[in-house]
Amino acid sequence: MNSAFDLDAAVTGAARAARTLACASSAVKDAALAAMAAGLDAARPALRDANERDLAAGRESGLSAAMLDRLALTEVRITAMAEGLRQIVALPDPVGRVVSQGLRPNGLEIGRVRTPIGVIGIIYESRPNVTVDAAGLCLKSGNAVVLRGGSEAIHSNRALARVLAQALDETGLPRAAITFVDDPDRALVMQLLKMDDRIDVIIPRGGEGLIRFVMENATIPVIKHDKGLCHTYVDRHVDLEMAVEVALNAKVQRPGTCNAMETLLVHVQVAEPFFRAFAPRARAAGVIIHGCKRSCALLTPTMGAAVVPAATADWDTEWLDLNLNVRVVDSLEIAIDHIASHGSNHSEAILTADYDRARRFLREVDAAAVYVNASTRFTDGFEFGLGAEIGISTNKLHARGPMGLEDLTTTKYVILGNGQIRK
Amino acid sequence: MNSAFDLDAAVTGAARAARTLACASSAVKDAALAAMAAGLDAARPALRDANERDLAAGRESGLSAAMLDRLALTEVRITAMAEGLRQIVALPDPVGRVVSQGLRPNGLEIGRVRTPIGVIGIIYESRPNVTVDAAGLCLKSGNAVVLRGGSEAIHSNRALARVLAQALDETGLPRAAITFVDDPDRALVMQLLKMDDRIDVIIPRGGEGLIRFVMENATIPVIKHDKGLCHTYVDRHVDLEMAVEVALNAKVQRPGTCNAMETLLVHVQVAEPFFRAFAPRARAAGVIIHGCKRSCALLTPTMGAAVVPAATADWDTEWLDLNLNVRVVDSLEIAIDHIASHGSNHSEAILTADYDRARRFLREVDAAAVYVNASTRFTDGFEFGLGAEIGISTNKLHARGPMGLEDLTTTKYVILGNGQIRK
Repeated sequence: MNSAFDLDAAVTGAARAARTLACASSAVKDAALAAMAAGLDAARPALRDANERDLAAGRESGLSAAMLDRLALTEVRITAMAEGLRQIVALPDPVGRVVSQGLRPNGLEIGRVRTPIGVIGIIYESRPNVTVDAAGLCLKSGNAVVLRGGSEAIHSNRALARVLAQALDETGLPRAAITFVDDPDRALVMQLLKMDDRIDVIIPRGGEGLIRFVMENATIPVIKHDKGLCHTYVDRHVDLEMAVEVALNAKVQRPGTCNAMETLLVHVQVAEPFFRAFAPRARAAGVIIHGCKRSCALLTPTMGAAVVPAATADWDTEWLDLNLNVRVVDSLEIAIDHIASHGSNHSEAILTADYDRARRFLREVDAAAVYVNASTRFTDGFEFGLGAEIGISTNKLHARGPMGLEDLTTTKYVILGNGQIRK
Repeated sequence: MNSAFDLDAAVTGAARAARTLACASSAVKDAALAAMAAGLDAARPALRDANERDLAAGRESGLSAAMLDRLALTEVRITAMAEGLRQIVALPDPVGRVVSQGLRPNGLEIGRVRTPIGVIGIIYESRPNVTVDAAGLCLKSGNAVVLRGGSEAIHSNRALARVLAQALDETGLPRAAITFVDDPDRALVMQLLKMDDRIDVIIPRGGEGLIRFVMENATIPVIKHDKGLCHTYVDRHVDLEMAVEVALNAKVQRPGTCNAMETLLVHVQVAEPFFRAFAPRARAAGVIIHGCKRSCALLTPTMGAAVVPAATADWDTEWLDLNLNVRVVDSLEIAIDHIASHGSNHSEAILTADYDRARRFLREVDAAAVYVNASTRFTDGFEFGLGAEIGISTNKLHARGPMGLEDLTTTKYVILGNGQIRK
C-alpha cells in the first residue's frame, strides 16, 4: 500500500491523458485492449497470488461466503476478463459517429458527432473484474478512467491495474488513461466526489449504501446503478402455460440479479388456475411466497405452495433470492398503480393475450424496460444487442437501462461555415 | 404571498400530475399551450400591474438598471411569450418517437422510444419569461414542472402562473402539471434540491453563484446552464477580411450572451495585418482590448485601438460586455492549449483556410460547439434548427449545447415477446 497516494495529482494526470485518448485512433485503442487481454493471460500466477492475499484477509475478517465468492479470481474468471476485453475490441468504436447532420438556410453545415465524455470515475465494491471490464469499455470509448475499488480487493485490483498499465505502455498510450486509486483510505472517496473540475461523471456500482453516499456527496454528475424491484403482472386473459414459464424464469433463473422478479401480481380472474400450475413448480425451485391475504387463501396446502403472509415492508423489498411477493389484484389499473408505488423503474412485465391492455401497460408503466410476454431477465446489454455493458443504469438522464459503449460518449456540434455572421 | 406554502404536498402533486401528462395526447397538450397563449394576451393589464409591483420594489431596493430591464414585462415581451408558446405548438411532439428498433435472434422485438422524464425542477432568477417558456416546453414534452423563480419577480411570476393554471383547467389537464413555488423563502430551495424521490432533474438558470449552490446541494441530477467563455482563433492562413467580420460579430453583435467571444487568439504570422483591419472597427464598436504583451506592442496608437494590458485573471473572465482579451500565439497547438486551460467547453471557433488545421481544431477542442469560419454567436436552439430551447446546457451528460424538446425526454426499452425465457 502506498500511503502517500496523491489523488489530486493522479486525477490531474487522468484529465491530461483524456485529451490524448480522445484523439487516439480505434486501431491504437484496440491494440491496447488486445495487449491487456494478453497481459492478463500471462499474469495468471501473479493475479492468483494477489487474490489469495485478499481472500485470506477476507476469511480472517469474517467476510460472508457470498462476498468471498465475489472476490475470488479463479482461472475461469481470469479467462472471462481477457475474453471480455477481446469482445470489446470487436465492438464498433462509438467516437466520431454522426448523430445528425444538416444544412441550414444560411449555408452553415451543422453536424452532431459522438465524442468521449472525458474522465469517468468508477467507485465499486468487491468484484475485481470491474477493474478490467470498466477500464476496457472506457478505453474503447476514448475516456480516461479513475478506478476506486473496495479495500477488500486491494491486492487483486493493484495486480490487475499493473497489467493494464503495462499494456498502455506497450501501445504508447499514457498510463494515466487508467488511473487506479491505490490507497484504501475512505477519505479519498469523499475527495474524489468533489473533483467536478476534472472528473466528468461518477458511476457507483455496489450496494444501496454506497450509491446513496455518492448521490448525497458528489458535485459531479452521477449515473446510478441502483436496485431493481421488478414486477410481473399476469393479466386476466393469458396463456396460463406461457405465464407460468415466464414468471418462473423471471424469479428463479438467477434470483440475485437486479432484473429478477421480486413481486408477482395476478389478476383475480385467473389467480386460482394460475396458482394451481405455478405453486408446485415454484416450490420445487425453492421459492418462498410472501402472499397477500387473497393469495394466502388461494394458495392452499394441497396446491403444494410454500407460503407466508406478506409483511407491509415486503412490497418494497428487493429480495435478490428465492423469496417472492405475490398479490392478487382486481384490475390492470391496480397493477399499474402498485408498480408506480413500489417499483424501482427498472424492468416490468405484463403477461397478456389482450392487445389493448398490453399497449396500455407499455405506455403507462414508467421503467427502463417494459415487457409484454417475456421474462424481465432479458434486461442486459448482451441480450439487447449492445455488446458489453458497464452496468444497468437506473438514471433517467443520459443513460437508462443497459449502458453500453455509446452511453460512455457525449456529443459535440461541429459547424462548418464560410464566414457566416449573425444578424 | 402564501406563507404557509406546502412544498412537500406541491411536489407530490406534481409527481402525480406527471403520470397523467406522460400519457396525454399531443392534441390535448397543444390545446393547453394555445389556451396559455390566449390567456396571456387576455391578461395583459393584470400582468402589467403585477410586474409594476415588482419593478417598484426593485427600484426601491436598488436593483441595477440591467436587472430592472430583465425584470420588465413590456407589451412586446408579453407578445413574445405568447408567440413562443404558439411556436411550441408547431414543434413535433418528441414523446413516442422511436430511437431504435430491432428483432433479436430469439424473436424478441426490442424498441427504444422517447418518453417524458417526469418532473423537472427549474430554479431561475429575475426574468419572468422563463416561467412561461419553461412551462411550455415541459408541457409539450409531457413533463410536469416545478418552477422556482427569483423573489424579485414574485408578483409577475404569480400572475403568469395563474394564467397558465387556468389554461390547464380549461383543457382538463391537472393544475399541478405546472407547479409554481409561491413562496420566496430561500429555505425552500434547499428542500427542493433534496427531493430526489419525486423530482427527476433540476435545471438551474442564473448566475454562477446559483449554479454552484445547486451543484453542491442537489441530490437530484442537475443540467447546468453555466457560463460561456468562448474563443475565436485566427489561424496563419486565413481570409483576413472574413476573419475580421466574423471576430467582430462574435464579440459585438450581442456581447451579453454566453456564446459571445471573450478571448481572441491570433497567430503571430497574421497578427499585424489582422490587427490593422480589426482594431479600428473594434474601437468604433466600443470594444476595449485587454492585450497580451505582443498584442499591446502591435496594437499601436496609430492603429486606433483601445488597448489595456491584460491581467492574469482576464483570461478566465467572462466579460459579457465589450471588453475583449487578445493574445498572439505562435502555433495552433498553443491556441488549442489555451482553450483547454481557459475555455468553458461552450463554443470555440477557428478561422482558417487550411483544411488539415480546421480538422485538427474540430477534433481536439472539447466543447459543446466547435466552429470553422463562423461566428460563435450561432450556438442557439433556433439557429441550430431545434426550435425553442430551454437553454444552452454546459453539461456533458444527457444534453450538451442548445437543449430542445427532445432533451426533455428520456427513453424506455419496449420489449415484445411471445413467451421468451432466459436460458
